[in-house]
Amino acid sequence: MDNFKFYMPTRIFFGPGSVKKLSRAKLPEGKGLIITGGTSTTRLGYVGKVAEALREGGHDTLVYNKVQPNPTIEGVRECAKLCREENCSFIVGLGGGSSIDTAKAVSIMATNEGDWWDYIVGGTGKGQKIKNDGLPVIAVTTTAGTGTEADPFTVISNGEQKIGGGTDKTFPFLSIVDPDFMMTVPPHLTAYQGFDALFHACEGYIATCANPISEMFSLRAVELIGASLPTAVHDGGDKPARGNVALANTLAGFVESLSSCTGEHAIEHALSAFHPELPHGAGLIVISKAYWKHFFQSSGDKLVALARALGKTDASEPQHFIDALGDLMKNCEVAHLRMSGYGIVPEDFGKIADNARDTMGGLFRLDPAPLSREDIIDILRESYQ
Amino acid sequence: MDNFKFYMPTRIFFGPGSVKKLSRAKLPEGKGLIITGGTSTTRLGYVGKVAEALREGGHDTLVYNKVQPNPTIEGVRECAKLCREENCSFIVGLGGGSSIDTAKAVSIMATNEGDWWDYIVGGTGKGQKIKNDGLPVIAVTTTAGTGTEADPFTVISNGEQKIGGGTDKTFPFLSIVDPDFMMTVPPHLTAYQGFDALFHACEGYIATCANPISEMFSLRAVELIGASLPTAVHDGGDKPARGNVALANTLAGFVESLSSCTGEHAIEHALSAFHPELPHGAGLIVISKAYWKHFFQSSGDKLVALARALGKTDASEPQHFIDALGDLMKNCEVAHLRMSGYGIVPEDFGKIADNARDTMGGLFRLDPAPLSREDIIDILRESYQ
Repeated sequence: MDNFKFYMPTRIFFGPGSVKKLSRAKLPEGKGLIITGGTSTTRLGYVGKVAEALREGGHDTLVYNKVQPNPTIEGVRECAKLCREENCSFIVGLGGGSSIDTAKAVSIMATNEGDWWDYIVGGTGKGQKIKNDGLPVIAVTTTAGTGTEADPFTVISNGEQKIGGGTDKTFPFLSIVDPDFMMTVPPHLTAYQGFDALFHACEGYIATCANPISEMFSLRAVELIGASLPTAVHDGGDKPARGNVALANTLAGFVESLSSCTGEHAIEHALSAFHPELPHGAGLIVISKAYWKHFFQSSGDKLVALARALGKTDASEPQHFIDALGDLMKNCEVAHLRMSGYGIVPEDFGKIADNARDTMGGLFRLDPAPLSREDIIDILRESYQ
Repeated sequence: MDNFKFYMPTRIFFGPGSVKKLSRAKLPEGKGLIITGGTSTTRLGYVGKVAEALREGGHDTLVYNKVQPNPTIEGVRECAKLCREENCSFIVGLGGGSSIDTAKAVSIMATNEGDWWDYIVGGTGKGQKIKNDGLPVIAVTTTAGTGTEADPFTVISNGEQKIGGGTDKTFPFLSIVDPDFMMTVPPHLTAYQGFDALFHACEGYIATCANPISEMFSLRAVELIGASLPTAVHDGGDKPARGNVALANTLAGFVESLSSCTGEHAIEHALSAFHPELPHGAGLIVISKAYWKHFFQSSGDKLVALARALGKTDASEPQHFIDALGDLMKNCEVAHLRMSGYGIVPEDFGKIADNARDTMGGLFRLDPAPLSREDIIDILRESYQ
């Protein structure tokens, strides 16, 4: 057995109604900054519920509601300025990965001189060490996709660089996973987000840094997604299915914390860096079959285990994992997705491969078999329709 | 799906040689107090290795080596006095549960006025709240049994009261699980400790507070013990078996943190409170079959799942779990244990039941079916030989 580390210090409250736990959270005195998107979290009353629970705990709140999908470094800076000016003592990220990742970055900028990009490794990031602990971050997730409530990572875009970053200082202090907040996510986004969680679990399972605890979380997340994602897509009001997918997503966040994503995520981040209208999960779906075929030799047994966890209980060869992926795509109504539908053209594949290697090249070193620049281009070419 | 909480903030380094990680641990400046037993940890060089790694990290150390099995409140007080006098800035518990649990209690007494027993709930404990965070505790475990490296609990004896206690403030700051430190544990202790870990996992699995994450840890711990404990007992030098049992024990510690022990542990603590020469694991072994039979009705499916995890892959009824337990006892050379061999007499069964209910009565409320005083006496009577 190889040596490994376990560290996931976030306190997580899971289950319907768990937003109310915020009223008893041990937070520093003072005002909280709620960071969220512009429409649904307010319209559906989630901002109000979070603010109400915090008010019961003696905390005023302030709302910044301009986070966009694929959050930008400019948005982080604007929000950090507000946080400093208003002298907030903790931060709530309410929404999907965009809001929560922004909250993590803002929490660090609130207590450290300099810019978030100073701490980014890759691209034009300066790779500096974060000196001070950030403000405590509360993550309240309204999607089941990024797992960011159970990991320290952020994905922030700076122009055409979309780069993941995070350290032990960027774990949420407390996370609320309340499936009641996910009931109205529309079918196509439920599917995209669910596949994102699925690939966090699967990539972390084959990554060279996988360990016995991350593997356990991976397989359980994959089982839950295989069993419940199609139902959550087709009947968003199905509470048990939403609960299972929410749990799978959180378990996949543990996988992020304990193991890592691999090259598949690096390639997709490059795709959506150039094409911000391509949802991250959709990007993963379109390249996945070609990507996973590269590991039949290096990780055959693991792919069989993943196929079984996905529900193909009689799987016996690596191809059965690709088959299971294909079945899940059909059952989740995402088998029709095409790169060309998002304006991606084959002439850009070299540029996309270079961006992936430049901005998140470290992930390729965790693939169980090496992927060259040519291999990446081949994956894009094979995936192209 | 019921609501639940996840919280296990300890940073764990697992694997052979991981003691060296101590040299890079982020500890407060100053001297560390190493708390350990009197013989084997020094003789086998573990105290030296811990002190050396800490010295590399710039820390002097001081050794308190008078911890006894079944550690006492008097020992905790003596050690806490030394810790205060020497102005130590962190604490290392090196050994089995006795040393690590003493370290946790001392860490709290070092930073709070009053006595450890003030914070104990049950018996003559005062049930007060701990005000201040304790000193950081490093747990270096040399046995695979208590799981205390991954949970906040301590078991300290005060006369004939042997009571578990712990809060969010008593999680270790950092734990080292180095199977190299377990290679010389003799066969009978390897078995007792392994069964203790097994019952942490199994009790946590049927406890009414079990949750989807604790259940996952439980089943994996049970699988690893079923697969590797007999080998670790028969060939203590088998590194993969020692590694698997060490991992199982740590996973069972997570179960303690996320779910709970049940009445079985309360009954055993009463037995060994009156008979300190009865090893805790041996006490669990002798009462286990009679205890588990009480849950055939309430938890039949869960007992079948436990039987399968223990290796009886075709298990189909609750009795098969009892059968699997019996097989494991035979394979680990502990099927011959007798209560009478430790001086326990049936006349004391009422007193033992009362002690269990008085000191750790809360655990019976987590049993999936109620156990009355008469039920506890019946369990003891049925187990008696």
